[in-house]
Amino acid sequence: MQVAVLAHEKFPDSAKTAVGLLRYADYEVEAVLDRENAGKRVSDFLPDVQDAPIVAGMDDVPEVDALIVGIAPIGGGFDESWRSDVRTALERGADLISGLHYFLAEDEEFADLAAENDCDIWDVRKPPEDLTVAQGVADEVEAEVVLTVGTDCSVGKMTATMELLEAARDRGADVGFVPTGQTGIMIENWGTPIDRVVSDFTAGAVEEMILERGDDHDYLFVEGQGSIVHPAYSAVTCGILHGSMADKLVLCHEAGRDAIHGYEDTAIPPISEYVDLYEDLGRPVHETEVVAGALNTKEVGDDAAARDAVATFADELDAPATDPVRFGGAAEADEPHGTDAVLEAIL
Amino acid sequence: MQVAVLAHEKFPDSAKTAVGLLRYADYEVEAVLDRENAGKRVSDFLPDVQDAPIVAGMDDVPEVDALIVGIAPIGGGFDESWRSDVRTALERGADLISGLHYFLAEDEEFADLAAENDCDIWDVRKPPEDLTVAQGVADEVEAEVVLTVGTDCSVGKMTATMELLEAARDRGADVGFVPTGQTGIMIENWGTPIDRVVSDFTAGAVEEMILERGDDHDYLFVEGQGSIVHPAYSAVTCGILHGSMADKLVLCHEAGRDAIHGYEDTAIPPISEYVDLYEDLGRPVHETEVVAGALNTKEVGDDAAARDAVATFADELDAPATDPVRFGGAAEADEPHGTDAVLEAIL
Repeated sequence: MQVAVLAHEKFPDSAKTAVGLLRYADYEVEAVLDRENAGKRVSDFLPDVQDAPIVAGMDDVPEVDALIVGIAPIGGGFDESWRSDVRTALERGADLISGLHYFLAEDEEFADLAAENDCDIWDVRKPPEDLTVAQGVADEVEAEVVLTVGTDCSVGKMTATMELLEAARDRGADVGFVPTGQTGIMIENWGTPIDRVVSDFTAGAVEEMILERGDDHDYLFVEGQGSIVHPAYSAVTCGILHGSMADKLVLCHEAGRDAIHGYEDTAIPPISEYVDLYEDLGRPVHETEVVAGALNTKEVGDDAAARDAVATFADELDAPATDPVRFGGAAEADEPHGTDAVLEAIL
Repeated sequence: MQVAVLAHEKFPDSAKTAVGLLRYADYEVEAVLDRENAGKRVSDFLPDVQDAPIVAGMDDVPEVDALIVGIAPIGGGFDESWRSDVRTALERGADLISGLHYFLAEDEEFADLAAENDCDIWDVRKPPEDLTVAQGVADEVEAEVVLTVGTDCSVGKMTATMELLEAARDRGADVGFVPTGQTGIMIENWGTPIDRVVSDFTAGAVEEMILERGDDHDYLFVEGQGSIVHPAYSAVTCGILHGSMADKLVLCHEAGRDAIHGYEDTAIPPISEYVDLYEDLGRPVHETEVVAGALNTKEVGDDAAARDAVATFADELDAPATDPVRFGGAAEADEPHGTDAVLEAIL
C-alpha cells in the first residue's frame, strides 16, 4: 500500500507516528508532508528508515492509496491548517487513516468527500463499542507478558517495544505484539487505542487483547503508554499495568530528560523510585518486576557518551539496559549492558 | 426543587442513589416510587433521613419538578417496567434526571415527550463533550484539596465524603464538594462522571472541576472512586489522584474486608501499604499525605467493637480515624479517634 504521511512542522522530532510508520510498517511511504522541511528528504534526518521526499502539501504528492495523519499533538485535536491537504487527498480518492482524538469520519466535510469519492476513513483511535470492565484474569494466558513502562510520554516506549520485539524474533523467540496506541495499531493492523476507551474499561480493554493473543505465543510484548507519574496520562498507564497483569516490566527513559515534557514543574523522579513505584503498584494485582531498561539516547552526541549513559541507567535500575535503536546490532553482543543482556532478562 | 425518586423493588438496601439523595441532597423528596413497599414511608426504613411516602407509581405522586431514577442496576440498563412512570412524569411536565448507563435522552419516546412538554432530560452519567487533558494546574486554586481514597470499591467513599463535608460545615468551615460519580453529581446538581470519561481525559476532567470551584472555597472535598489496587478500576483512581493534585488524602476502608470485592484472588494489602502507595504515587505530581481515615463499620455489631476497629485502623494508618456515620455526633468529640480528630487533621 502506497501512502503519504502528514507531519506538518513536526517532522521528525515531534512526529513519532510518522517516524514509527517509516521505520516499522509495511507501507510504501511516497511522501511526508511537512511544509517547514519541503524539499528535503527523510534520509536527511533519518538515515536508517525507508526514504521519501518531504513535500509542502498534497499537491506535491504522487498517486497514493491513503493519507495517514502522522502526528498526534497533545489533546489530539485537528489543526485547521491541515484541512486543505485532507480535502485534496479525499478529492483524489485516497483513503484517510488518522490517530487523532478528533474523528475525521465525523467531520461533515470529510465524511461528505469520502462518500463522494468512495474513500474509507479509519479513525484508529476510535475504540470498539463492546468493551467492558476487567475480570482480573490476564495472568491465565500461557504467554509471559512483558510490558514497556515509561518515565514520561514520548521517551520511546513504542520504539523500544518494536526494536526488542524484532530482536527477540531474530533470536527465534515466539513473541506476539499487543499495541495500545495509534502507531502500534497502524503497524500491527489490530489493537485497541487504550487512551480513548471509557476510563472504567481501561484495564478491561487491555485484558481483552491479552486474552485474545495470549495463548498463541510464548511471550506477549505489550506497548505501554504515558507514565505512572504523568499529570495527565497516568490513568492510562495504571490501567495498562493492572489490565495486562504483566510478569516483567522494561523501564523506558530518555537520556537527559529531567522534567515531564510539557509539565516542566513536574520533575522526573530518580530512576530507582520508578522501579519501586511500578513494582509496588503492580504487585497487589499481579507480582511483577522491572527486569531491564531501554534508554533513548538520541540526544546524546557520540556512542561513547551514550554507552556511559546506558551504563549509568543500568546501575540506577539495578538491571541490564540498552538503547535498542543505537546498540541493537550484533556487534554489541558482548557488551555488559546491551540488547542481548536485555533480551536475556526478558526471555 | 421538588422531586420524586424512582426505586422500584430496591428500596432501601439496593437503592444507594435514592438513599444518598434522601440523606444528603437539598431536593424536597415528595415521594419514593417502589411498588413493593407502596403505602409505607421512608421513615419506616431509615429514621435519620428526610421522610417521604412510598408510592406504587407516578399516578400517586403530587406535583413535582423532576423524576429522578434513584437506582443503578448492574449493567445500568433501563427496566421496561419503569416506562409508564417515566412517561407519566414527562406528560406532566416534570424533568427527568437519570444515572443509568442507558441514556434516557436517547430513548425516542422520552425524547419526543420531553420536547412536546418542554422538559429537560439530564443523563448524569453522560460526560460533557468538551473535556481535554489535564494541564497539571489544579494546585493553583486557593482551596486546599482533600480527596477520599479507598482500599476497594464500595467501602463508603461517597458517604464518608458527604459526612465529613457536613461535619466540617457544621464547624463553620467553607467547604465545596467535587462529586465524581452519579449519586454525588445528583446531590450537588453539578459534576462530571469520571468513570465514563475517555481515559486520556480522566485527570483533565477532575482538574476542570477543581479549577471551576477552587477559588470559591477554603477547602474542596473531592469524592474518590475505586482503589489504586483495583484490578479493573485503578485507572480511574489514579486519574483522580493526579488530576485533583490533592493536598490531603482520607483513606476509606470497610472493617473486615480482606479481598477486593468481586476479585477474591486479589487480597487487600496491609493498610500501611496503601498509605505508602497513595503518597508515593501522588508525590511526583503533587506532595500529598494520608492525614486521616474513615472506616465503614456497618457490618460490625456493637459500638464497642466498632470503636476498637477504628482504633486499630488508626494505628495502621498512623493517623486519626473515625466511622463518620456511626461516630459523627458531638458526643464523640473527646474520643482520641473520632470525627473531630479527623476534621482537625483535614482542616
